[in-house]
Amino acid sequence: MARAGNEVHICETGPRDGLQLVEQIMPMAAKKAMIAALARSGLPEVDAASFVPPQRFPQFADAAEIVAEARACSRTSNGWVVGALVPNRKGAERAIAAGAQALYSIVSVSRSHNLANVRRTPDEQIEITREIKTLIDALPEAERPRLVGGLPTAFGCSIEGRVPVADVCRIAVAMRELGADEITLADTVGYADPVLIKSVVAAVRSAVGQDTPLRLHLHDTMGLGLANVLAGLEVGITRFDAAIGGLGGCPFAPGASGNIATEDLVFMLEQMGLRTGVALPALLEATEILAESLPQERIRSHVREAGIPKVYGVAA
Amino acid sequence: MARAGNEVHICETGPRDGLQLVEQIMPMAAKKAMIAALARSGLPEVDAASFVPPQRFPQFADAAEIVAEARACSRTSNGWVVGALVPNRKGAERAIAAGAQALYSIVSVSRSHNLANVRRTPDEQIEITREIKTLIDALPEAERPRLVGGLPTAFGCSIEGRVPVADVCRIAVAMRELGADEITLADTVGYADPVLIKSVVAAVRSAVGQDTPLRLHLHDTMGLGLANVLAGLEVGITRFDAAIGGLGGCPFAPGASGNIATEDLVFMLEQMGLRTGVALPALLEATEILAESLPQERIRSHVREAGIPKVYGVAA
Repeated sequence: MARAGNEVHICETGPRDGLQLVEQIMPMAAKKAMIAALARSGLPEVDAASFVPPQRFPQFADAAEIVAEARACSRTSNGWVVGALVPNRKGAERAIAAGAQALYSIVSVSRSHNLANVRRTPDEQIEITREIKTLIDALPEAERPRLVGGLPTAFGCSIEGRVPVADVCRIAVAMRELGADEITLADTVGYADPVLIKSVVAAVRSAVGQDTPLRLHLHDTMGLGLANVLAGLEVGITRFDAAIGGLGGCPFAPGASGNIATEDLVFMLEQMGLRTGVALPALLEATEILAESLPQERIRSHVREAGIPKVYGVAA
Repeated sequence: MARAGNEVHICETGPRDGLQLVEQIMPMAAKKAMIAALARSGLPEVDAASFVPPQRFPQFADAAEIVAEARACSRTSNGWVVGALVPNRKGAERAIAAGAQALYSIVSVSRSHNLANVRRTPDEQIEITREIKTLIDALPEAERPRLVGGLPTAFGCSIEGRVPVADVCRIAVAMRELGADEITLADTVGYADPVLIKSVVAAVRSAVGQDTPLRLHLHDTMGLGLANVLAGLEVGITRFDAAIGGLGGCPFAPGASGNIATEDLVFMLEQMGLRTGVALPALLEATEILAESLPQERIRSHVREAGIPKVYGVAA
C-alpha cells in the first residue's frame, strides 16, 4: 500500500468526463474560471476536454481554447499536465495542435459498450490508438504527448454485465505493446468492488508487466467509489481520476452516476496521511464555479455539503 | 480480513438512529410495516427503538409497542435479535419489560458531546451503564438481554475535534469491566478515515482483550463510510451498524449526515463474497415504506437510486 507521506497523483476529469453528459453548455468564461481554480488548487493533471466532432458534441466545441487556457495556467498550477480525450486520429491532431500534453485514447473492454460508444469493435479501436501513437512518434521527441490507454468497462458493463478479466488483460497488453505509456482501468458504470479491484489489478499487472503505470478511473454509482480507491491503494495504485462535484456519467451506460468526487478523494487521502498536493479550499472554489454555472446539475460532494471538518489536517 | 464466505453481522439501526432526528413522526402502521419488511430481509439484528422520555422524544413514544412488534416478527426474520437504546435505568426497565434482547448503553468519548447529549460526564454515564448491568444481572439468566456498550465520537467530535485514543480505550475498558458483552465504536459525526479505523480498533483491542466482540457504527458524513467498513473488515471486524436509506444524524453533532446505508453495505459485502444473510430486494421494500411515509426525508442509498445491477450475485 502507498505509505503515509507518499504522493498520490490525481487527474481532474471534471472538465471532460464531468461535462460530457450535462444538458446545459457551460459558458466559456465559467469554464475558464473553473480551470484556473483547479490549477490553483495544485492538481497535477487535468483531463481538460474531448476532441470529439463539435457538431455532435457542442459542449466540447471549445476544446482547443480550453486546452490552451489550461496550458496557460501552468504557472499557477505548478506545472500540471494538460490532457484531453481523443477518439480518433483527427481528434489527436487537433489536441496536439492545441497543446495537449497527454492524450487519452480509450478502448472499451465490453464489445457492446465500444460499439455503442464509437460504432467500432474493441479491435478496431485498438488500431485507431495505434494510428494515434504513430502520429505522436512523428513529432520531435520533446513535443510528444504522453499516451494514456484507457479501458472503460474494465470492471463490468451495464449492457454485458460481468466482463471477463482475460479480455481486460488482452486489451491492456495490446495497448502497452502499441506503445501506451500508461493504462487506465475504468469502472465506467461503477460496478467494481474492492475484491474485484484487487484481482483485476493483479491480473493486468501480471499481463503487462510491473513497470507499466496503472491508473484507476472510478465511478460512484453504487457508493463504493472510495472503498475501491482504498482497495487500489492497498495494491499499490497511486494514480486516480476524479471529478469535482462527482459529476459525470456515460451516455451508453444507463444508471451510471458520476465519477468519484475529487473533493472527497482528496479529503480521504490527506486524512490517511497520503499527500496529494491539492489544497481543498481552492478545489472547493472550482466546485462553486461549477455549481453556479450549471444550476441544474446535482453536485455530489460530501466535503462541499458537510464543509471541511475541524479534524482536517490535524494529526490523529 | 473476513474471508469470502464468512458471515458479516449487520444491525439495522434505521428504526432508532435513523428516526431520532426526523421532523415528521412516522405513523405506527408504517413503522410496523417497515419492521416486518426488515425482518423478512433476513437481518440478524435490529436496533428497534429508543427508551428515552416520551415527552421529550415523541417519535419514540411507541418504543414498547415497536419492540414487541419486532419480537413478534422473529419467526419470519429467522430469529433476529431485537435491541433498543437505553439512556438510563428507567429506560432499561421499560426496554426489558417490552422484550428487548439487547440493550445499547452509550457513553460518548468526547466529554462535550456527552454533556450535550445527556447532561452527564462520560464517567457519570459509565455509572449509569453499571446500574443497567446490575438490573440485567438481577434477571433469571435465560431472560438477560445482551449489553452492548456504545462509544459515540470514538473517531472524532464536531465540538472537540480529534479525540484522544487513550480516552477511547479508557471508556472501552470501563465498559468491558462493568460487564458489557460487546463494544461498539461509533463514528457519530463521520470523521473517521481508514487509517484511523485501523489504529483505533488495534488500540481498543489491545486494551480490552482479543475476546471482546467489537462493532463499528459508521456515518457517511464525508463519504468515507464504506471505505471505513473495508478498513474494519481488514482488521477483522465483522459486526456493523447501518440504517436503510442512510438515515440518521445526531442532534449534538452539527453537519453529521446519516448512517452508512444498509442497502449499500449489503451490496458491497455480498459483491466481495462475504455473506450477510440479507436479501437486497426485501430490504429495498423496507426502504420504500420509509420513503413513502417520510416524504420530506432525503433517502441516501445508491442501490435504491441506481437499482440492483445485473452483476449482483454473479461471480466475477
